[in-house]
Amino acid sequence: MTENNLQTCTCLSIKQTAKLLKRNNNFIILTHSSPDGDTLGSGFALFYALKMLNKKVAVLCPDTIPEKYRYFVSNTDMVSESGAYVVAVDVADKALLGCYEEKFGDRVDLCIDHHISNTKYAKNLLLDSDASAACEVIYELLLCMHIKINDIIAKALYTGISTDTGCFKYQNVTAKTHKIAAKLYEYNIKADEINRIMFDTKSRQFLELERLVLDTAEYHFNDKCMVLTVTSEMLEKTGCSGNELEKIAVMSRSVEGVICGVSIKQTDADTFKVSLRTYPPLNASDIGSKLGGGGHKAAAGATVKGDLNSVKEKILQVIKEVMEQSNDGTTADK
Amino acid sequence: MTENNLQTCTCLSIKQTAKLLKRNNNFIILTHSSPDGDTLGSGFALFYALKMLNKKVAVLCPDTIPEKYRYFVSNTDMVSESGAYVVAVDVADKALLGCYEEKFGDRVDLCIDHHISNTKYAKNLLLDSDASAACEVIYELLLCMHIKINDIIAKALYTGISTDTGCFKYQNVTAKTHKIAAKLYEYNIKADEINRIMFDTKSRQFLELERLVLDTAEYHFNDKCMVLTVTSEMLEKTGCSGNELEKIAVMSRSVEGVICGVSIKQTDADTFKVSLRTYPPLNASDIGSKLGGGGHKAAAGATVKGDLNSVKEKILQVIKEVMEQSNDGTTADK
Repeated sequence: MTENNLQTCTCLSIKQTAKLLKRNNNFIILTHSSPDGDTLGSGFALFYALKMLNKKVAVLCPDTIPEKYRYFVSNTDMVSESGAYVVAVDVADKALLGCYEEKFGDRVDLCIDHHISNTKYAKNLLLDSDASAACEVIYELLLCMHIKINDIIAKALYTGISTDTGCFKYQNVTAKTHKIAAKLYEYNIKADEINRIMFDTKSRQFLELERLVLDTAEYHFNDKCMVLTVTSEMLEKTGCSGNELEKIAVMSRSVEGVICGVSIKQTDADTFKVSLRTYPPLNASDIGSKLGGGGHKAAAGATVKGDLNSVKEKILQVIKEVMEQSNDGTTADK
Repeated sequence: MTENNLQTCTCLSIKQTAKLLKRNNNFIILTHSSPDGDTLGSGFALFYALKMLNKKVAVLCPDTIPEKYRYFVSNTDMVSESGAYVVAVDVADKALLGCYEEKFGDRVDLCIDHHISNTKYAKNLLLDSDASAACEVIYELLLCMHIKINDIIAKALYTGISTDTGCFKYQNVTAKTHKIAAKLYEYNIKADEINRIMFDTKSRQFLELERLVLDTAEYHFNDKCMVLTVTSEMLEKTGCSGNELEKIAVMSRSVEGVICGVSIKQTDADTFKVSLRTYPPLNASDIGSKLGGGGHKAAAGATVKGDLNSVKEKILQVIKEVMEQSNDGTTADK
């Protein structure tokens, strides 16, 4: 989170946004750091659309774009920073611009987003917090701009929607999400191949890590809480990178009866990154903030220092407190 | 597969099927054995619809209905067999009627299905092989019958569509699938809860089995083939039942680069059930049939006798042959 901006942020309608984009000619599109399918899908769908209108467009991503998105990623233009119209897509806070925060953080002309937590750091904001993905917003915007959607735009948009909804699995899906997906299926998007890459493929290293992590499984509080641990040694041994670790967090909440999944990842000798995944009545952000971190209702995190045992002890103590305060009604006996 | 029936099977349109259902008053609806979301969703959606028309309807399932479907399953009527109109839903072959095959196999009045492999064992058949799920067909049928869909019907139909498509992930999804999902979202279906139960929940026993099975992982043919083994001992130790074993088959194909996933499950001292999951250019049914079984392009199976080592040897030999015959172009060096 950044401090409040002194500049005011104007909330725009889709129509106003479409006009603004048509009026400008040189664009820099910024994605968030640790790029996912939604920020990249939004960025490149908008890139291809603006190219159709003969604009000059650069897409800048603070981190390397993972190989798996190559089916819709392309080289973009070189655009001079001075005078460029800067658009951030799916970027809720300027801190998420990573290495581009310093240069662009205070000069984003337009942010297109779906996060209700958007910090309004941009001059103009097109925000639809009911949209499952920023790509839903971009889809509506392209329609309003009378852009003729093609296969590659459809692939980019579908990727964003599919990845941000866990392939239409999560609570953020609405009738509109499925209606847009139906429209995108009219193009040659090969959705099954996209989904196979995004959801059904893991590296052999990750499978090996999974095996090691499963050995660490601990259950607490009448088996309502599961704790998984990833040590530096495991990461070294398997050669697994951080990219796949989100899946360990998901794993921690996947067992029947578990409403609090905890995964503890060692990042340094005495530093552990804690990921929390909860189901109602537990609120992950209550736990995260008590640990000095933060997050959302169902997913939160924090960084905790100490040796593994004391870190675990601390986390479990906080979970116990939050469980007792929640409407759960059951005692959180360890 | 059963031998061809002497009786002829009449293929019906949705309109003809709607008329036929309206004309009858006492129904027995049959689901297939080892019931899944689609056969149950179809059966109960049709049950609730026919009840609205004041019909007497029994739903018969050859096996126990898993607890997880309880949110749309209900008690049904007692219907006398004689004179009842018998409808099979999502049942491609009468052999899949399990314990009801003997009684009803040759007297199914109407089959509603989406399997292109349907053996036309019923007197009348409503078949849409482009539908991702039988529930898609039932949805169209209910519309045609002017049934006022309600929450529980919508839940049943959504469950069938979601489970048969891997939550909109697989190749069988079409624009129509998403259009129907969008319509079902107009009801209070709590799709995220349904998907959580169907896709994101595993038993603690299964997690333990997963750990044991991962220890057996073997890679062959330049890592294009992965073999996982489930022994009787593992099943006994973990207390896992057959229901969750489909997931092991899926696991066997989930590793990057693997185009042939093999899972071998011991069913007896010297009997092994082999599940094959492939990606193009490999065809699972080519492998399955050479092993004395069968299946589809991407999923097939067979039962192989012998000790574990000789069974593995046999399977790998067949895979090698099929790989060499396929358009893969690479040699299948072990």
